[in-house]
Amino acid sequence: MIYLDNAATTRTYPEANEILFRVNDAEFYNASALYAEAVDVARSIRRARETVSEALRAGDGEVYFVSGGTEADNTALFCTRKPKGSRIIVSAGEHDAIINPASVLKEQGFDVVTAPIDGNGAVNVEEFAKLLTPETSLVSIMHVSNQTGAINDIKSLVALTRKRAPKAVFHSDGVQAFGKIPVNLRALGVDLYSVSGHKLHAPKGIGALYVAKGVSVHPFVYGGGQEKGFRSGTENSAVILAFATAVERCMKNFELNYSKKREYIEYLAKMLTERLPDTAIITDTGVSAPHILTVAFCGVRGEVLLHALEKYGILVGIGSACSSHKESRFKTLLGLDEAHKDGIVRFSVSEFNDVNEVDFVVDKICESVELLKGYARK
Amino acid sequence: MIYLDNAATTRTYPEANEILFRVNDAEFYNASALYAEAVDVARSIRRARETVSEALRAGDGEVYFVSGGTEADNTALFCTRKPKGSRIIVSAGEHDAIINPASVLKEQGFDVVTAPIDGNGAVNVEEFAKLLTPETSLVSIMHVSNQTGAINDIKSLVALTRKRAPKAVFHSDGVQAFGKIPVNLRALGVDLYSVSGHKLHAPKGIGALYVAKGVSVHPFVYGGGQEKGFRSGTENSAVILAFATAVERCMKNFELNYSKKREYIEYLAKMLTERLPDTAIITDTGVSAPHILTVAFCGVRGEVLLHALEKYGILVGIGSACSSHKESRFKTLLGLDEAHKDGIVRFSVSEFNDVNEVDFVVDKICESVELLKGYARK
Repeated sequence: MIYLDNAATTRTYPEANEILFRVNDAEFYNASALYAEAVDVARSIRRARETVSEALRAGDGEVYFVSGGTEADNTALFCTRKPKGSRIIVSAGEHDAIINPASVLKEQGFDVVTAPIDGNGAVNVEEFAKLLTPETSLVSIMHVSNQTGAINDIKSLVALTRKRAPKAVFHSDGVQAFGKIPVNLRALGVDLYSVSGHKLHAPKGIGALYVAKGVSVHPFVYGGGQEKGFRSGTENSAVILAFATAVERCMKNFELNYSKKREYIEYLAKMLTERLPDTAIITDTGVSAPHILTVAFCGVRGEVLLHALEKYGILVGIGSACSSHKESRFKTLLGLDEAHKDGIVRFSVSEFNDVNEVDFVVDKICESVELLKGYARK
Repeated sequence: MIYLDNAATTRTYPEANEILFRVNDAEFYNASALYAEAVDVARSIRRARETVSEALRAGDGEVYFVSGGTEADNTALFCTRKPKGSRIIVSAGEHDAIINPASVLKEQGFDVVTAPIDGNGAVNVEEFAKLLTPETSLVSIMHVSNQTGAINDIKSLVALTRKRAPKAVFHSDGVQAFGKIPVNLRALGVDLYSVSGHKLHAPKGIGALYVAKGVSVHPFVYGGGQEKGFRSGTENSAVILAFATAVERCMKNFELNYSKKREYIEYLAKMLTERLPDTAIITDTGVSAPHILTVAFCGVRGEVLLHALEKYGILVGIGSACSSHKESRFKTLLGLDEAHKDGIVRFSVSEFNDVNEVDFVVDKICESVELLKGYARK
């Protein structure tokens, strides 16, 4: 099988999975208990936090473990201090984990506005700048688009925000960035940053929210006061340790895997352009994250092509997995023409993919497209 | 080692742990994706939901998977519809995952009142009844006390509530009940019920909220619309399946293990009473859940005894693990005298404990208490 939906989720690294098993089996103690076995677990969690914090270059900011990227995003949107009715800016390309909390805030009377994106999926900086006002209390712009792999220049967007909206808290959803492109939170200057484990070969059910020093965020989940009172609930020790293990491996082989993924994506884009020249290549592979190639095939529905490729053991996405079952709001944002707008397919790779697969993948795409167009003509 | 802190957390069943490993390794697909491998995962999650639903006798109510008992409790408190300023009743014995959200609601202007508990940890029904008013919008009373194992008669409390507070939603935190005592949600008549995986030998990071048919609860976490829109975030497939596996084993051996645990607890209570007659037995073992025995030793601090027993490989709790590191609000609630109030120790057993351990445990307790009292006299 050729798994090309790594932006949806990834296979857990064996070493992360083994730690998960071991902790659940033999080191399952409640990290808040008082005996030595539990104190050891608490110490391991502290080390895991340091690992994630260092990988993010979080400096003196705090990294809090939460149940996943979605919870991190919800916390950023709901739990920052915002004057009633103040402006909140999100980009049109954000994940539903931002868009939907923003809609709730809009219903609550906040002035929620949307920064448009360009055809490659990146935020249009000029249009974004126009939205910033001194009354803006929160900005949330993703680091890497889950739909196209486009990288937003967070550092510049933060600088713009500091100038025109000095009271705003700047959050970035880094779920598709962490482990994929170099992330240096101190250099980016963000106030809040969300990451997820299962996008970088950790198990599902774990993520983290970075909170820069001095930024005030109240808890989203209240209870026993775990995570320094920021996120209650019995410490998810096994998964936290597995997450840190995955992050370590990810960082150790970062450059090698970065090149490997980029080579794959670029070769795939080249071959598709050569062999199916009417395909619109949406991802700007020169400047995007290394692991995503989103294209729009001409005259073929993405979902139908997905199922055609499935028969050859090739698994692809058609955008965010979360929205697979509903009409995507995304295809209209990219300004695609009628022939391409239903043809979006997202290929997303991991280090487990091999560039030697590409020719087979492209062969099967061409065969499938030809077949499907044949059906359409009948 | 003799692990007697199973109310804090439990060892994951090997078969649940193996499923976790297998899904993370080979069936890691995003359950919302469209290819057959992902659809299979979604189908397994549906089956897991049925397993949990049947074990709870949930009937036509919905069971939603969430990140744990704490999130389930937070959802129940924050996401039910409550007129501004209306009355909310919680019991004094509730877990912090209820008490702390209730405090937030109090700050928001709700009329939060607390139903007192009796000396064994159960809610005082007469006092509870007095608090019910037609303006009550929410009641949250735990099924089994995590501190003493006392069982609240939820069915009667629901009936009282329906009569005197017909508009109230009735929530029960069943974290220490599910898997320990028979639970039949249809018979109990509750509107909402929280359960947790890691208290019944599933991994941490999973729980569920039962919502009876017709009860309106808005989402706590917004995003991709998973769990029928009730709880967004990539489906935590591996842990959900492990949870269902643990629930299945739990239910299959329910009666045998119930008797085994009860026998252990009763024999432990008997031996402590015989050999340390000044010990206050807080748990009313005749009518409590089978897995918890809470006692107050005379003239010995619980925390000090915990560390003394630790040296013999005996691990016990001194109340909720979550609150181990802070002064417990619980000890004052039970009305203990000066000699006993700092001596609380909670013994909590699982099927992995053996009644033959008890004599050794009691020997070591007696030795430790004697030694510690000796120190105190010096």
